Formats: sequence, structure tokens, C-alpha cells
Amino acid sequence: MNPVNEQAEHLDQVTITNVTITPVAFKDPPLLNTVGVHEPYALRAIVEVHTDSGVSGVGETYGDAGHLARLQAAAAALPGTDVFNINELRSRMAAALQHDQVRGGHGMSGMVTGSSTTDRVLSAFDVAALDIQGKLLGRPISDLLGGAVRDTVQFSGYLFYKWSGHPGQNDDSWGPALDPAGIVRQARKMVDEYGFSALKLKGGVFAPEEEVAAVKALRAEFPAMPLRIDPNGAWTVDTSIRVGKELDGILEYLEDPTPGIGGMAAVRREVGMPLATNMCVVSFSDVAPAIAAGAVDVILSDHHFWGGLRRSQSLAGITDTFGLGLSMHSNSHLGISLAAMVHLAAATPNLDYACDTHWPWKDPEEDVVRAGTFAFDKGSVKVPTGPGLGIELDRDALERLHLQYLECGIRSRDDTGYMRRLDPSYVLQSPRW
Amino acid sequence: MNPVNEQAEHLDQVTITNVTITPVAFKDPPLLNTVGVHEPYALRAIVEVHTDSGVSGVGETYGDAGHLARLQAAAAALPGTDVFNINELRSRMAAALQHDQVRGGHGMSGMVTGSSTTDRVLSAFDVAALDIQGKLLGRPISDLLGGAVRDTVQFSGYLFYKWSGHPGQNDDSWGPALDPAGIVRQARKMVDEYGFSALKLKGGVFAPEEEVAAVKALRAEFPAMPLRIDPNGAWTVDTSIRVGKELDGILEYLEDPTPGIGGMAAVRREVGMPLATNMCVVSFSDVAPAIAAGAVDVILSDHHFWGGLRRSQSLAGITDTFGLGLSMHSNSHLGISLAAMVHLAAATPNLDYACDTHWPWKDPEEDVVRAGTFAFDKGSVKVPTGPGLGIELDRDALERLHLQYLECGIRSRDDTGYMRRLDPSYVLQSPRW
Repeated sequence: MNPVNEQAEHLDQVTITNVTITPVAFKDPPLLNTVGVHEPYALRAIVEVHTDSGVSGVGETYGDAGHLARLQAAAAALPGTDVFNINELRSRMAAALQHDQVRGGHGMSGMVTGSSTTDRVLSAFDVAALDIQGKLLGRPISDLLGGAVRDTVQFSGYLFYKWSGHPGQNDDSWGPALDPAGIVRQARKMVDEYGFSALKLKGGVFAPEEEVAAVKALRAEFPAMPLRIDPNGAWTVDTSIRVGKELDGILEYLEDPTPGIGGMAAVRREVGMPLATNMCVVSFSDVAPAIAAGAVDVILSDHHFWGGLRRSQSLAGITDTFGLGLSMHSNSHLGISLAAMVHLAAATPNLDYACDTHWPWKDPEEDVVRAGTFAFDKGSVKVPTGPGLGIELDRDALERLHLQYLECGIRSRDDTGYMRRLDPSYVLQSPRW
Repeated sequence: MNPVNEQAEHLDQVTITNVTITPVAFKDPPLLNTVGVHEPYALRAIVEVHTDSGVSGVGETYGDAGHLARLQAAAAALPGTDVFNINELRSRMAAALQHDQVRGGHGMSGMVTGSSTTDRVLSAFDVAALDIQGKLLGRPISDLLGGAVRDTVQFSGYLFYKWSGHPGQNDDSWGPALDPAGIVRQARKMVDEYGFSALKLKGGVFAPEEEVAAVKALRAEFPAMPLRIDPNGAWTVDTSIRVGKELDGILEYLEDPTPGIGGMAAVRREVGMPLATNMCVVSFSDVAPAIAAGAVDVILSDHHFWGGLRRSQSLAGITDTFGLGLSMHSNSHLGISLAAMVHLAAATPNLDYACDTHWPWKDPEEDVVRAGTFAFDKGSVKVPTGPGLGIELDRDALERLHLQYLECGIRSRDDTGYMRRLDPSYVLQSPRW
């Protein structure tokens, strides 16, 4: 208990002095999706916000060149701001990005480009500011978000079709997964190692019949496991309805079978299971049209493009109010993002599903947080209880991953370009089937 | 600047030990509305939450007997809770009130009964918990809500038809207002004393033609002043449309002309000015039907029935997302509520209108916060910058107003019953015209 015995003195303004933005690269396996294949390195940017209190905070976001340029523009507008005033951070950023002409840099491989530029840029600064606030106040971020309603946060195992390794490199430890048996083998290994009690298959890679067969094989191997498939809008409305009917009773939800609010609404009228999205509702401006159209049952939040943790809670309030389910999306990420996701999930009462994470695909040796900070037990991660994010930056590791960024030559995520270099006949097409 | 030189130690759990609930009564003038007239005393409950840290916090809410019973039931469930975990406070309260059989006690004179019981009870505890958090952390509540986007918060002058004094008592300092000239005289006095730059007339008292004449008289006296009228659903749809057309171009918004989402939607299709409500959208469960029906343009938030400050911010996120305006409602209140309203308003970027307040109707000698805490300048109140709410409880005054509660004999607000005792022919009717 250790009661605090007296009231704190009023802290005067804690002012942001400067920001450090460090792009990093970490190894990524050849995970297949409907726009191509993951390159050998995934990019992230590590944002460090420094204050005149001597306390700094960290955030993590996309590392694409276009996004880095926007982060720099935003960072230049922040010195002098009170780190407790996130509303002020946001309005300064919006002003700095008002005439944004930077191309690309959406961080999600061209599959999601409609997110709000301000919110996408704000996110890492919001997390860093909350990290600083928590450190100054001696409280975990989950407290600043209303308090943890759970001590651990459940994640789902994220299955991918994949090659055995990147062309020209050794096989990775996961081996190939190019058919139902390969997916089941991958799922078994992932469940054995991490204890996940929900599974999601990234689809849109092979013809729908093959992916339906993979889902059915997963169901046979894991009779009670909630299952999801996410083809990233690779299917027409008709195909989506056909697949939806075939997987009725098998899927926990069907994620983004087809592109757009109109298409999703058409599918939703015909299929039995909930439809989820992180593609047709990616910003607050998408919410009203999606609800009016009856397009989705579940929204996957993602603090990286919904404007950070506080605005992601605002989204949670909306899904609660409108009777929608709430889940959580992930891209390839490091430990700072994991910590932020866990705090947010812990303080969001109406989080209805196990969250997505790419964590198992990351080399355990590669991270910017101190090794051993996070461990998965029964598919769950403990909510950090230390001040702020409750993590510590490993500066040697940050330097290593930054050097890797400098050396790897990748400056923007390009799953399609990488695929085309390997297979010049590859054609980008949406919907594909 | 006074930078903080080192990171705070992690505060261990700060546990709620007990709660004190003190009903108080303060003098209220005979303000007329569509359900009757304000009684000589208004009731409020002062909620003090105590923690094992030695730091306590305060909240203010309705003082009706039914509400007091619910507050007590909720309070009994709180000892042992971490005061930083407002989510936990809410779920404990929801459980404690699950089989609530208490009658009445909605605090708003029967005009609004559809608000969420849990949210209505949570509110004062949410404010008290944030007051404690702010005191422990040395930060104003506005910081805990995302940061103040304004240093002062604008209020509107709240005009009422009224008698010169309560029957059998001396006239009060405001005198009578029973016709357009009386309303204009009242408005002039209020604007001169408080500097308000927006005015709201509580209507539904006289026939619509007379109230239209009062609004037009206000427009003649104050050519540039934003004006609102709120008849509390006293008009039929047809009457509302007729009045709406007559006041087109004169009103900033028309508030609750007619009862219910369906009625409001029918009016909204025919009138030009924005329609506002604090009657047909009073809980999160009303939001989706109101939006689907196109019932309103502006929602008046009120942290007393929307579940406190954090949940009121969630409402603000919804109005922002759905392109609705946001204003703020008030009942007769004391300084704790004013402080909470000001912090909330300060940290809500999309607050679009000057907030309601009954403040001028309160005897300046009567409050539970230290005299002189708040001053109106140009219709605005400065956002407190001290820790927590930034106010200090005046224990002598609290005791005085509690004794007044014990002696006044009023235990539930009953504007209609009071009117009927004075005029047995008075009939409650909705809509009235």
C-alpha cells in the first residue's frame, strides 16, 4: 500500500525541449499478403520526446520515408509545448501538416491510405507524452487512460502464408506455409510457443477455395479455437458472400473480405458471421458513413493511425455507443508499440477480442526495449505496472537497429515491388478474386 | 518553468477508504418552467472521497432523496478501490445498482428520466477521483483530460420567467419577469453584472407567441447577441415548426421544442436553425437512434448525467465524429460543479457554444467552496490551475448548507408540486401548446 502521505506540490509546466526521431530496421520473414510479400526488413521510427524536466518519453511508429518527413515537420512544431497538453500537441501538428505535400509514407503497404494524416503523425508523440506524464507522476499509462480493467491482455496468433525464407537467404525457423498443412503446422508451433487461444489467418494470397480449406484444416486441428481470416479486400462482393456462407459457424469474424464501405455492407447483408474492418474504417471521418451503411460489426482499432491512445479510447466509446465490437490491428512492430497496445487494451473495458500482433514474426534478438521486457503466457502479455509505458529503451539495440536501417537500403515499405523483383509477372489487383 | 528535476517514484495503489455524502440546500428564486416553479431551496449532494494517502477529493451532484440512496449504495461498494481506476469504480457501481429499485431521484424535475442510472451516480465519484488524482500528481484536472485548449470558459446568461419573489417572502434582487419587458430587464442586469455574450431563455411557461415576443424583444435590445430558447418540450411538432419558422435567423439554436426523438426529427426537417437537446439524448443509448433519425444538430452535454468528465469527453468525441455541435447543460449548482464544468469545457476542443449555468441565480453568500473562488469576467470563468479541481471546500459553509437542508424540509425536487400548492388549478401537460 505505501500510502502517499501528502499532496504533491503543483508541478509547473513541463515543456518539450526537443524531439529525436530514429528510423530503425529489423528482420522480417517473407510473409505473403494480397499486395505482395514482406521485404527482408521492416521499418519503424522511434520517437523520443525530451522535456525541460530531464524526463523523456518514447513512441514507435511507421518508418517509411514519407512518414519520417511528416514526423520531422511535426516535431519542429513542438518545442515549448506543455507535455501535459496533448490537445495542444495535436493542434500544433495539424497546423504544421496543413499543407502537407509529402507523398506516400502511410506505412501499411498501400492497403490503407485513408487514415488521417494528423492522427497518424500524432500517435507516437501522444504515446511519448503519456510516457513522460506517467514517469513524472509515478503511474502507469493505463492509469492515465482510466485504469486497467485487466492485468493481462490477450493476443491472437497471426498466421501467414510464407516462403521458407527470403530468396537467397537461409530458411527461417518457421519454414514454409503454402498450403493448409503448412498453415496448420505454423499454427501448432505458434500456439505451442505462445499459448494463443485465438488465431487469425492473413488471406488474399491464394484462391479463396484454398484459403477456405486452410481455415477448415485449422478448425479440424483446433476444434474450439476462435478463428478469423483477413484477405485484405482481395475478394469481390460475390466471392465474399460465397466464402462467408461457406465459413459460417466457423469464423469468429470475417475481416475485410472486400474493399470499401459499400462492398462490405453488401456482403454483411448476406453472411451470418460478424464482419470486421481495419481498411474501410480507418479514421473518424469513416465512422458515420460506415454506420449509416451498416458496413461492419467490428472495428479494429490501431493507435498508430487513430491518433494515439486517448483518441483510440474515443473510438472505443463510439463502438460501445453504437453496439459495434472492438478489436485491435497490428503491423510489424517492436516493444514500444507492444507496450502502448497493452496499456490501451488494459484500460478499454469494451475490447471484445484478442488483439492482433506480429510479435512472433520478430527475431527475439531484435528490439529497442530491454530484452526480456515482455513474455507471452497463454497468449497474453502482462500489463506493465511501472511508471509511463513501463519499459526501458536499450540504446545499444537502438543504435544497432538504426545502423541496420542505414545499411538495409529500404526506405519505404513496398511489398508489391519486392514481389515483382522476384516475379516480374506478378500483378497487383483488387479485388483479386 | 521550475522544471521537475527527476522522475517521480512509482506511487503504489492509492486506495479509497470511505466516502462522505452530505446533502445541502441553497436558496433558489421562483424560476418558472414548463413543469412548475423552482422551490425556495435547491438540493445538491456533496460527495467527499477519502483515500489512504490522506488526500480527499470532492464531487457535486443532485440531492434528491432517491439519488442520495443510490449514492450511498454506490459509496458502500468503493472502499478498497484504487482511486486511479475509474473504470473499476464504474463497474463496482454498476454492480451495486444492478437491482436498483429506488424510485425517482433523477434530479431534473421529471423532465429528464432516461439518463443512465450508473452514469448519473458515477459522475460525482468520477469528479472526486480526478480531484484526488490531480492533487496527488500536482496537476489540474484539465491536464488529466488531455490539456486545456482555452484559459477561460464562456457561459451564456440563463434567463427565466419568474415571480418577484417566493410567495410569502420578500422580493429577491432580480424582481419579476413575466413579459418581454421583464425578460429584457433581467437580461440587461445579467449582462451588465456578468458580461455574458450569449443568452438563453427558459421557455415553455407562457403561450409560444408571448415567448416569441420576448425573444424578439431580446434581439431588439441586443442586436448581435446569440440567442437560444428552451421550452423543455412544451410544444407540439406543429407549434415547434411554426415557432421555428418565426424565429429563423434570430436563434443560435432552438433547444428541445418538442418531446422525443421522433418529434424532434419532424421539427428538424422543417426549420432552418440548429435543433439542440438535453432531453431526447441524455445517455449513450440515445445517441444511435437520434443520429439515425436525424433528430438534432447539437447535444448539450452534462457531466452530472453523462457519467462524469471522462465519459463526457467520450460524448464530445461522438459529436465531433458525427458532425454534431456540442454545448453544455446546467441545473442549479454550486462551485464544485462549476469547477468540474470549467475543467471539462477547457479540455474539450470541439465545444462549440457558451455553456449554460444557473450561477447568477445563486445567492453569492451561499456555496461550499471558499468565497471568491470564481469570478465572471465578460461572461467567462478562468480555468483553475491548481491541483485537481483547484478549489477548496469551506467546511463551515458546508455545515451551514447542510443544516439548511435539514431544516428546509425539501427532500426531492418537485417544481410541479410546489406550483400546485400555490395554484391548485395548475395542470402538468406535455406538450402544452
